[in-house]
Amino acid sequence: MSRHLVLQTDFGLGDGAVSAMYGVAVSVDPALKIYDLTHEIPQYNIWEGSYRLYQTITYWPAETVFVSVVDPGVGTDRLSVVAKTTEDQYIITPDNGTLTHIFQNIGIKEIREIDETINRLPNSGESYTFHGRDIYAYTGARLAADVIQFKDIGRKLAVEDIVELVNPDPILNNGTVQGNIDILDVRFGNLWTNIERELFIDTGVQYGDLLEVTIENNNQQVYKNVMTYGRSFADSRLGEPLIYVNSVDKLGVAINQGSFAQAYDIGTGANWKISIHKIKNIEVN
Amino acid sequence: MSRHLVLQTDFGLGDGAVSAMYGVAVSVDPALKIYDLTHEIPQYNIWEGSYRLYQTITYWPAETVFVSVVDPGVGTDRLSVVAKTTEDQYIITPDNGTLTHIFQNIGIKEIREIDETINRLPNSGESYTFHGRDIYAYTGARLAADVIQFKDIGRKLAVEDIVELVNPDPILNNGTVQGNIDILDVRFGNLWTNIERELFIDTGVQYGDLLEVTIENNNQQVYKNVMTYGRSFADSRLGEPLIYVNSVDKLGVAINQGSFAQAYDIGTGANWKISIHKIKNIEVN
Amino acid sequence: MSRHLVLQTDFGLGDGAVSAMYGVAVSVDPALKIYDLTHEIPQYNIWEGSYRLYQTITYWPAETVFVSVVDPGVGTDRLSVVAKTTEDQYIITPDNGTLTHIFQNIGIKEIREIDETINRLPNSGESYTFHGRDIYAYTGARLAADVIQFKDIGRKLAVEDIVELVNPDPILNNGTVQGNIDILDVRFGNLWTNIERELFIDTGVQYGDLLEVTIENNNQQVYKNVMTYGRSFADSRLGEPLIYVNSVDKLGVAINQGSFAQAYDIGTGANWKISIHKIKNIEVN
Repeated sequence: MSRHLVLQTDFGLGDGAVSAMYGVAVSVDPALKIYDLTHEIPQYNIWEGSYRLYQTITYWPAETVFVSVVDPGVGTDRLSVVAKTTEDQYIITPDNGTLTHIFQNIGIKEIREIDETINRLPNSGESYTFHGRDIYAYTGARLAADVIQFKDIGRKLAVEDIVELVNPDPILNNGTVQGNIDILDVRFGNLWTNIERELFIDTGVQYGDLLEVTIENNNQQVYKNVMTYGRSFADSRLGEPLIYVNSVDKLGVAINQGSFAQAYDIGTGANWKISIHKIKNIEVN
Repeated sequence: MSRHLVLQTDFGLGDGAVSAMYGVAVSVDPALKIYDLTHEIPQYNIWEGSYRLYQTITYWPAETVFVSVVDPGVGTDRLSVVAKTTEDQYIITPDNGTLTHIFQNIGIKEIREIDETINRLPNSGESYTFHGRDIYAYTGARLAADVIQFKDIGRKLAVEDIVELVNPDPILNNGTVQGNIDILDVRFGNLWTNIERELFIDTGVQYGDLLEVTIENNNQQVYKNVMTYGRSFADSRLGEPLIYVNSVDKLGVAINQGSFAQAYDIGTGANWKISIHKIKNIEVN
Repeated sequence: MSRHLVLQTDFGLGDGAVSAMYGVAVSVDPALKIYDLTHEIPQYNIWEGSYRLYQTITYWPAETVFVSVVDPGVGTDRLSVVAKTTEDQYIITPDNGTLTHIFQNIGIKEIREIDETINRLPNSGESYTFHGRDIYAYTGARLAADVIQFKDIGRKLAVEDIVELVNPDPILNNGTVQGNIDILDVRFGNLWTNIERELFIDTGVQYGDLLEVTIENNNQQVYKNVMTYGRSFADSRLGEPLIYVNSVDKLGVAINQGSFAQAYDIGTGANWKISIHKIKNIEVN
């Protein structure tokens, strides 16, 4: 039984690029099972590529082979690698920061550099711009189909040398949790923070509590208001904001059936900070 | 041989949500065959989710398991159900109106509530916002893979209690058919009405006849003009409007290689009415 | 072992159209392996449909069956055909120009008209507007699943009668290559020309050379500047333009991590001409 092969890129589905990767993979083994993570990573956005892997791979079986191609440095001396996680899944990617979230949150037990002299689509010609097809999909398919083993990929690298993007930890300070807005739940406009539920619970908060939420961009205050901590969107009225636990067990900020990100023009990344603390219930005389 | 599993959501393909559903499903059974209906249902648009199921499922084999997640009420007391159609296909969905078109046009012979105490992804944690992954994909995969049987889903509900959206019938009155604009053939800008070909034929219309078409929004006239009843788009000149029979055997309104919806800013739903009647051929003196 | 079936359309993935095609195909044979090329061909854009096939099919195995439905002439007397390439792959398409690039660049050794009296989905009713489902997907699935053989498709047509779109050759003149901008690498905004690497190399150019690039639309100059010939994007600075060899072994024009097409509002097609010649290296006194 071959392993599953799961592809992620920033290529979009509008031309033949992803299909060429599929074609290369089924040419390696016509019985291979190939799936998509997403192909709509914003161009060159390594952070988002890293996050989407982290968000998704734990729901796939052990031994699944993931190929991720967000590769602004194609043609530079950035390395092409295969990482083996502590859960025995494989990630094939340029070593450009794409492994950040998996390395920090799941764990990588071994990493090898792809030896491109042996792991390259035969006759892939004079093009040096489509490693996604010629190196990554080809190598991913051969690993998934058991044509090669992990040890055949190339030389071992030191796990501690994996390229990591800046990814600050949330902090708990005097009852206030402070963190970053890591990413958007794009289609629904919800904010996903890096604040784990468990850290938040340590502040003694319970469902139904009122929270004061402050959002800053580059130290400029963008939003400050009170909202409820709800178990799900249904715990707020239509159009009301709330704090909730998202599907990766961290805090999210949403407007019930609206887009919080659009409503307040919120972005993501290291400059977007969020602070949350419980306030005393407002008493009505 | 396992059943096919077909997924529909309003999640889009831009993040890892749909891929997580796939991962859950192949973790249930690595041999499962999983397909997409669409993941671009406009957010929270239950009507369109209902329509796309109706438009598509008859082309899939008996025993296919469909999972549809358009779920603005996640976390409320809306029920999670599995419906068995008269054609022996299964639809797994929140009971929020998503079954409207299938119930009315195809037929549902049995419906069961999902018992979430036994039909929930193990260790799916403290998140109450992603039932698509934790309940629906998981249950759909187990049903498709024969791990559970329909009777294991949970208690039977009364078929007549299925939540239905308002869905008026077209009427024939004095040679004029009146109906609604149900939905758009979005990419091409064609209007799809709820007027069946057979009802229309009862007015004695034949290909090539001239028709007067009136479109109203909230009783305000938006469009009134004459067009031909054509067998296909090719029966009108480039840029000319026509009435035709669409791929679900109902009347459509199109501009040959143009977008009727954009040209006249036409929307869909209960407030968008269309009237069509045959006119005498214009005689040239 | 059945053949792979690969689908391309201009339908988008927003409604149930592509899923209905999948349903028809798995109804022919539940074990069939079905993949996508792309479904985002701009509506009615036969040229782009032709190009995406050419860009992709060589990466798929022999015997793969491709179905391409970009069909503005549905309902006219345009023919429905199956072409067999010199590499023993099959293309099922309306004969409306979609075969242009494959015919000219890969080769077609036999072509047959689809006899729609025997190759049509049973009971596909009175709709004459969805041949993608009723004729093309159905016939593609039956051919891929070995239910019918190529000779069962219908009568042979003359290969030289294949409908071809205008597709001028690039020319080399006095050290200047002149060609067309065939298509965009849409997501990244790179221009893809019809100038083959080999023709270009004949001008004696080497990586690192400086080139003068002129782009005209309808004989109006749109762009004229100097850029480097690079092996990959990394050979220019961030934001700098370059000429490179793309993944179909032709010349491309890019801005490193920017969009050349957007920056200078460049389009594609027969009216968009590009000229490139090597300049003497600029000497610094």
